[in-house]
Amino acid sequence: MEKLIITVALTGNVPTKEMNPNLPVTPEEIAQDVRRCADAGAVLFHVHARDEQGRPTLDVNVFKRIVRAIKEVAPDVIIQLSTGGRAGRDWDARVAPVRLLPEMASFTTGSNNLPGIVYENPPQFLEYLAKVFNETGVKPEIEVFEAGMINNALFLSKKGWIHPPFHFDFVLGAPGALPGSVKILQFLVDLIPAGSTWSVAGIGRAEIPLATAAIVMGGHVRVGLEDNLYMPDGSLASNPGLVEKVVRIAREVGRDIATPDEARAILSLPPERKNRILEML
Amino acid sequence: MEKLIITVALTGNVPTKEMNPNLPVTPEEIAQDVRRCADAGAVLFHVHARDEQGRPTLDVNVFKRIVRAIKEVAPDVIIQLSTGGRAGRDWDARVAPVRLLPEMASFTTGSNNLPGIVYENPPQFLEYLAKVFNETGVKPEIEVFEAGMINNALFLSKKGWIHPPFHFDFVLGAPGALPGSVKILQFLVDLIPAGSTWSVAGIGRAEIPLATAAIVMGGHVRVGLEDNLYMPDGSLASNPGLVEKVVRIAREVGRDIATPDEARAILSLPPERKNRILEML
Amino acid sequence: MEKLIITVALTGNVPTKEMNPNLPVTPEEIAQDVRRCADAGAVLFHVHARDEQGRPTLDVNVFKRIVRAIKEVAPDVIIQLSTGGRAGRDWDARVAPVRLLPEMASFTTGSNNLPGIVYENPPQFLEYLAKVFNETGVKPEIEVFEAGMINNALFLSKKGWIHPPFHFDFVLGAPGALPGSVKILQFLVDLIPAGSTWSVAGIGRAEIPLATAAIVMGGHVRVGLEDNLYMPDGSLASNPGLVEKVVRIAREVGRDIATPDEARAILSLPPERKNRILEML
Amino acid sequence: MEKLIITVALTGNVPTKEMNPNLPVTPEEIAQDVRRCADAGAVLFHVHARDEQGRPTLDVNVFKRIVRAIKEVAPDVIIQLSTGGRAGRDWDARVAPVRLLPEMASFTTGSNNLPGIVYENPPQFLEYLAKVFNETGVKPEIEVFEAGMINNALFLSKKGWIHPPFHFDFVLGAPGALPGSVKILQFLVDLIPAGSTWSVAGIGRAEIPLATAAIVMGGHVRVGLEDNLYMPDGSLASNPGLVEKVVRIAREVGRDIATPDEARAILSLPPERKNRILEML
Repeated sequence: MEKLIITVALTGNVPTKEMNPNLPVTPEEIAQDVRRCADAGAVLFHVHARDEQGRPTLDVNVFKRIVRAIKEVAPDVIIQLSTGGRAGRDWDARVAPVRLLPEMASFTTGSNNLPGIVYENPPQFLEYLAKVFNETGVKPEIEVFEAGMINNALFLSKKGWIHPPFHFDFVLGAPGALPGSVKILQFLVDLIPAGSTWSVAGIGRAEIPLATAAIVMGGHVRVGLEDNLYMPDGSLASNPGLVEKVVRIAREVGRDIATPDEARAILSLPPERKNRILEML
Repeated sequence: MEKLIITVALTGNVPTKEMNPNLPVTPEEIAQDVRRCADAGAVLFHVHARDEQGRPTLDVNVFKRIVRAIKEVAPDVIIQLSTGGRAGRDWDARVAPVRLLPEMASFTTGSNNLPGIVYENPPQFLEYLAKVFNETGVKPEIEVFEAGMINNALFLSKKGWIHPPFHFDFVLGAPGALPGSVKILQFLVDLIPAGSTWSVAGIGRAEIPLATAAIVMGGHVRVGLEDNLYMPDGSLASNPGLVEKVVRIAREVGRDIATPDEARAILSLPPERKNRILEML
Repeated sequence: MEKLIITVALTGNVPTKEMNPNLPVTPEEIAQDVRRCADAGAVLFHVHARDEQGRPTLDVNVFKRIVRAIKEVAPDVIIQLSTGGRAGRDWDARVAPVRLLPEMASFTTGSNNLPGIVYENPPQFLEYLAKVFNETGVKPEIEVFEAGMINNALFLSKKGWIHPPFHFDFVLGAPGALPGSVKILQFLVDLIPAGSTWSVAGIGRAEIPLATAAIVMGGHVRVGLEDNLYMPDGSLASNPGLVEKVVRIAREVGRDIATPDEARAILSLPPERKNRILEML
Repeated sequence: MEKLIITVALTGNVPTKEMNPNLPVTPEEIAQDVRRCADAGAVLFHVHARDEQGRPTLDVNVFKRIVRAIKEVAPDVIIQLSTGGRAGRDWDARVAPVRLLPEMASFTTGSNNLPGIVYENPPQFLEYLAKVFNETGVKPEIEVFEAGMINNALFLSKKGWIHPPFHFDFVLGAPGALPGSVKILQFLVDLIPAGSTWSVAGIGRAEIPLATAAIVMGGHVRVGLEDNLYMPDGSLASNPGLVEKVVRIAREVGRDIATPDEARAILSLPPERKNRILEML
């Protein structure tokens, strides 16, 4: 089995320090958490930005500050910026993080319900965003909340805007979209093209069980406070604590952990694009 | 195996007579098509309304005219009014057809992409509509474009707003949502609660193959020009022609066709509610 | 979708004329049935031999007489000789039909229960038979009664004794082995290597429903009195009548029927081996 | 989620002390291993007998000695005697362990290939053994090497010889039968009747990954040297060491471990039958 790539979704748009004081919010806090998670075995970091009041923002200047802070303390890790829509509906604002040329950025290829909202990614926006991935050579992580989103991604690929090998992240357990079970996960894995890689991001209580399933299924794992605030025993989680747990489980079953460069090889990330983002800061 | 319930989605919101002259648009055309489809073996009719220019409308007066026209020529069939969102986003307007007390109405329990749009059914609207189903005793046909919508329906059931046994309609093959394959269909069937009934509505070229699969899988079938304009040989379809084809296939494999009252028994539709709608006209 | 290959399992080991007078038993009867089935659209014929008392036999002289009779009246069809074990446990006898160099022969890659018996194909026999397929260049039809038999075939392939692209036949509904449902069929289809072809042979009442499912799933179909003696309406079946039914269903859903040479292309059967068997008679 | 039942397959028929010196073979060694495994968290023990030369035997006197030794040091654990066929083909000998009235005995409901042999459980034997389970009130653990065996068990249930709720053990990864993947495991779980319990016994390298999957899927776990001789890191395993690993993984994901009496409740084992076997010794 391939070595295990551990991704951390550090902050997200929804959690607050009131919910969990371990949540990293400022660029400095985020960078420190990255360092600790990297020490524990994580290599890929899914980054959201918050403004000075802690509210979600798509301001590229904040993204730049975060990236600078991360690169100082953890220059080797893979940075994946979010294009998520909770922070705003303006297409150009959502696409801006991709134009910063990170190694990866997230790409949700469809629409679905989430608590209290429709997470809107209309067909025209998918086309717009896919073209920006194509122009910039940034690798999308295809965020799949519903099985039809796999098909939507394949449609964008047929149009020539995104390119295999694809990396899918199955986000399971969010109220309003696919529930978080191994049965659902196995079904999604069966739908993606041969040669793809995948990880799973279980939401809430589904996080550790689905991460565990992925470890033995040959997939990869995303954990982090964006997706889940608690450890299985009910205590408050931290990003490094979640990574440590995943690493312990992987060791129990004999699966090795990927280094950043091993992860780049598995994900077909061109090494020469590792630091393009530095020139954009 | 249970007898086969054949549903016809007669008109929909999108097709026009330019696309297929067999499309029934006026109340009279719709009623005539119902009669011909019923003669061929169909028992359940999914009804959309159009205004005098042929544009989608949620005007209850148009729905009333259609129902009156149908009941005159085909008093026994089961009428299912659409609560579909293409005709407008006003919640009360979308709910109005349910308040006419048809035996059934459609209920899409989530959001997804469709060509050019997000089909928006936010969580708050689902709750609102579910409560109206609960109050009125109208049976929802749960329209499933993505697997998570099954889970959303179960959530509404836990809240006490909709009640088993459920009837699901899997809408497969619409660009933007789940593709139309037997594999996807089987997966969805595996996710619904024991005791549920289901039908499949294949979009476009998927219509007849998926209807055929449903016949041998023990499910039920929805066909009609709303979903598909062509016969498998490429000629223009008509609603009665599609029903006749389904009946021929069912006969080849030895599956009997349900009468309207047999369909009511299979769907747990209380016979005493059959004509409540007449009092509302 | 690929054109549909219709296989007929004409006689088998178990049925008798008492059970169904349409059963072809003598070489002449078998050849006549082949001709009628070929006229109806079948192209591939799975052949068992019976002795003069109508009992199963592996006597190559009987096989030769059958092949001669078939080739006279239907020189273009593909002949597949059975290596099935009900007629005897002698390995050499079971392998002898392969050594006659038909275009295809059946190959059950494992053991399972059948009514009253264990259908024994021990690992050592699988290896022995696989090597004969390898030496002779006869294409095996891999008969799958249980999912593990797919894996067994892949093991024989890794050893270099059988070669892709594989053709699998899923035999479903026999008491003692896998039941005959679309769910099981879909599962098996998901397990075979990309580039494989497959057909389904439903046993008894499962024959026509599973054949129908295969037609819309992109697989191929095996019908015939070996597997099933009745039409869905309960009347006695005949081999040509079963083929005609399959053809009518395929036409309803718009799937074209393969000619013998189109079937050879789909199955990767080398045209130059079409008549090797004639030199062996 | 239900608490986790950990079963240990202590000895089996195939392994030897030469392969792994930790293998318990004599009644005393077996009893000591049971005690250590029970201390670690195991509650159910699958027992095979060996003669004085270490060869598999169905001699009830050896079974009695083993049971006596176990009951002395671990009176609370659940004992499951094997009816496995490698030790001999004599039906009465295979059934004899059931007649000793253990709380459970294993029951493989079909035939399949294993390395070098056909594991023969013909239909008539299944019927014979099922009737003994029925007469004695011993609960069968239905050992499933192929999916069709689930159906065979349901057939025996329809005949009234075995009774729900059933407990299935999926034996995956044995060469000749179903391979050891989460996909296969999920498929089998989907086939068993609602209200059943299940565990998985992964063979060889599949043992710990499948046990891990079962923990997060809500199933139960069988480990032990009968199935696998090595830890994931390649070192020699021991029965207690395997149990400890399973317990650590369960704790990481927050799944509690069942005590013997909690396991009896989950498996619907009547407490009053716990010590019937003592009267038979």
